[in-house]
Amino acid sequence: MTEESVILLVEDNESHAVLTTRGLSQHEQKIKIVHVTDGESAIDYLLGRGNYSMPGSNPRPRLVLLDLRLPKIDGLDVLKEVKSSEDLRAIPVVILTSSMAEPDIVRSYYYNANSYLVKPLDFDEFRREMSCVADYWLNWNINPL
Amino acid sequence: MTEESVILLVEDNESHAVLTTRGLSQHEQKIKIVHVTDGESAIDYLLGRGNYSMPGSNPRPRLVLLDLRLPKIDGLDVLKEVKSSEDLRAIPVVILTSSMAEPDIVRSYYYNANSYLVKPLDFDEFRREMSCVADYWLNWNINPL
Repeated sequence: MTEESVILLVEDNESHAVLTTRGLSQHEQKIKIVHVTDGESAIDYLLGRGNYSMPGSNPRPRLVLLDLRLPKIDGLDVLKEVKSSEDLRAIPVVILTSSMAEPDIVRSYYYNANSYLVKPLDFDEFRREMSCVADYWLNWNINPL
Repeated sequence: MTEESVILLVEDNESHAVLTTRGLSQHEQKIKIVHVTDGESAIDYLLGRGNYSMPGSNPRPRLVLLDLRLPKIDGLDVLKEVKSSEDLRAIPVVILTSSMAEPDIVRSYYYNANSYLVKPLDFDEFRREMSCVADYWLNWNINPL
């Protein structure tokens, strides 16, 4: 029996979250998508605080899909939190944003984002991108135990 | 006209290099694979030193595929060099190794490898992995200008 892979999706735009979830869900592997809508909840989840302080309530994600413009705590600050923590650093953080702005791309890599993806405007292309994301990060990429 | 994407392949095992190159070359995009066989040459290429000191001789790679066990300078030291440089850090470095050893995986992520892949033993699986690598990093991932 294959264990369920958790993807933490940090996305405040409801329709983008639906598209992302649909795209990922076509994948053959069992995926549990944990969807949070602001940066503070993302950090709470990752650190097991607040709503996620109960043991077992925050299974370690195989992947974080992180929007940049987020309420409460910005995406870049979530990224910094993950990558400055020796425990969390090994979790791949993929920026998934509408922004093609060069400073966003540069800053994301500066803070060691694993990858930077832009949300396609076309639905079918979005679906294909998410299919590739799931294949790459869940089928091929190796996470530490 | 699409510009050629450069992939720097750092691999001392000749047959693994052939398999990797074949797998990547199926991809629709124009790819130029620069193959070096030790860590020192990889760093020379990236920094424009030694054999790569002529202007234009070391076009910036879209991706580095990096083996861990390498002559002269180890793969992990190449990774550290890239990720400690503000200029080079944005180049995705994907570890491509035969090692499933947990310390190798942990250390690679500790030094901010973008991803960690294991070379499949099966030829067809190797081909599929490389096809996914090319699709993900060349079609979808965004690098800074």
